[in-house]
Amino acid sequence: MFKIRSLVTALALAGSISVAFAWETLPTVAPAPEDNPTTAEKVELGKMLYHDPRLSSTGTVACASCHNTMLGGEDNRPNSMGVNGQTGGRSAPTVWNAAFNTVQFWDGRAATLEAQAAGPVTNPIEMGMKSWDDVVARLKTIEGYQVAFEQAFGKDAITQDNATKAIAAYERTLITPNSAFDKYVGGEKSALTAQQVKGMELVEELGCVSCHSGPALNGAGMFQRFPIHSNAFFAAKYHFKDDKGLAEVSKNPADEHLWKVPTLRNIALTAPYFHNGAAKTLEEAVTVMAKMQLDKDLSKEQVADIVAFLNSLTGEFPKQAMPTLPATPGKTFN
Amino acid sequence: MFKIRSLVTALALAGSISVAFAWETLPTVAPAPEDNPTTAEKVELGKMLYHDPRLSSTGTVACASCHNTMLGGEDNRPNSMGVNGQTGGRSAPTVWNAAFNTVQFWDGRAATLEAQAAGPVTNPIEMGMKSWDDVVARLKTIEGYQVAFEQAFGKDAITQDNATKAIAAYERTLITPNSAFDKYVGGEKSALTAQQVKGMELVEELGCVSCHSGPALNGAGMFQRFPIHSNAFFAAKYHFKDDKGLAEVSKNPADEHLWKVPTLRNIALTAPYFHNGAAKTLEEAVTVMAKMQLDKDLSKEQVADIVAFLNSLTGEFPKQAMPTLPATPGKTFN
Repeated sequence: MFKIRSLVTALALAGSISVAFAWETLPTVAPAPEDNPTTAEKVELGKMLYHDPRLSSTGTVACASCHNTMLGGEDNRPNSMGVNGQTGGRSAPTVWNAAFNTVQFWDGRAATLEAQAAGPVTNPIEMGMKSWDDVVARLKTIEGYQVAFEQAFGKDAITQDNATKAIAAYERTLITPNSAFDKYVGGEKSALTAQQVKGMELVEELGCVSCHSGPALNGAGMFQRFPIHSNAFFAAKYHFKDDKGLAEVSKNPADEHLWKVPTLRNIALTAPYFHNGAAKTLEEAVTVMAKMQLDKDLSKEQVADIVAFLNSLTGEFPKQAMPTLPATPGKTFN
Repeated sequence: MFKIRSLVTALALAGSISVAFAWETLPTVAPAPEDNPTTAEKVELGKMLYHDPRLSSTGTVACASCHNTMLGGEDNRPNSMGVNGQTGGRSAPTVWNAAFNTVQFWDGRAATLEAQAAGPVTNPIEMGMKSWDDVVARLKTIEGYQVAFEQAFGKDAITQDNATKAIAAYERTLITPNSAFDKYVGGEKSALTAQQVKGMELVEELGCVSCHSGPALNGAGMFQRFPIHSNAFFAAKYHFKDDKGLAEVSKNPADEHLWKVPTLRNIALTAPYFHNGAAKTLEEAVTVMAKMQLDKDLSKEQVADIVAFLNSLTGEFPKQAMPTLPATPGKTFN
């Protein structure tokens, strides 16, 4: 489709960019940690586990329920619905390109995809399993999983560690390259409209890229305070400060309202926005971010240009085969 | 894989069958009604709609949530979980081979797959949409559906009628042929174990096949009273009579406790059993059916033989491509 050129070349081609910010195309392969090299068998097992509602107490909620790989990798809800219709306070981040986050969860409390995958399964309002021991015990009763774990990890391999490794290995394949933006950065100048190029320049000039940098436009693991600036109107409307972010976990006042910088990739598909899903549209999100983070009031035209640019970040979604989940003869959930 | 032979040939090969019951293999193509011929475009659209949680009020429940095509076509629960964690009184029937039912729902209140598909979407405890007008209005906002409906049905085609036709067309492709049973009936005598053949003979001799007949072993649209016989112990344990079946809809006392005969295809995968999901295992279900319907007490060995036979009814599940659902830019659900 296109060749990733050097950044220098890309910037030279995108001649209208006035500041030498290093826009990067999305890699088509995600790096795997040394202790969990990606293999086809792990990916296949991980795909099964990821889509299996039997990883929840009620048998109704899979990872894919809230992080839907048939959609933009999440559920288009301000907060997700876990077992028994329960909802929490945060909006599900997209799983697409999560492999390019170096911290996971909105508050960045997990360092790896493997660590992240362990969390929701035993969260009482998400998948509601009492413990990973219960998950492992349930998986062990399913003959097809005995086979799939053995193929991926060897004999007697059904453990929490291997289940989360398999899920993470699958998630590393969920990459959406070849967006219009990537093509443009790769040298295909006609890939963006004039308005999108204007939006791209604005994003750079305004300083959005001081956080949203790197190939996934997520600061590659950066944390940032949100909101930085105060605004009584927005405070009353969006309640951003109700959730203390990283400090909820660390209990360190210095971490209050610190959040992982989220990816901008496919952001047109993942409304509503922010950690609490309080902004319904991209226009709203862009306006709020400029005001709360950069203390800037954007014109309607500027907002429209930036939104046009953000729409160019929607990538190509890989075709996937639907997994056939191993049956549980005689097993019931209630 | 195998050739469907004439029933006479099949029975001759299965020489040990003493009664001339016409066991039938499962067709690999389901007949479509005259006003909804199956086309690739309808099947593709139907697959998208079937897996799309945006057909529910909360954006969390798709047809596939309770009738899971990655599993045995249902959810292995006594009752399903609809929007906001609500549950009803009946167990989700499998969607696999539903094309071979001539009535749909446990109480047979829908005559076609098309009519069935309309029901759960606006059921307040299932998918919870206020009306099909609301569903149509929502689908019309999604550009990808505008395209997919046009490809399947022509211009300006987003209607309830077409949505349910597309879902039904997709469901007609959900067929699981080539079970061990089918191979055996088709002439491959080694496809069943000696115990499974014994179970098959028992099913015939006991009279199970007086209802569970036809290629889907569902009586091809037959209704039957359940339970027929009374048993105080089972009545106290299973509460089968709390639900009046067809009479709940028809309000006709003659229809009390009348139910559609469910398919036995893939029954090993669809625990728990009966309209209220009250029996957790196949052994339990077989024991109860013999007692309540045929007034027969089976020995443990007989139950085991029949269960072995029922396990031979698990077919081959077709490989499916995972649909990519058209995005809803800026759309949120809550």
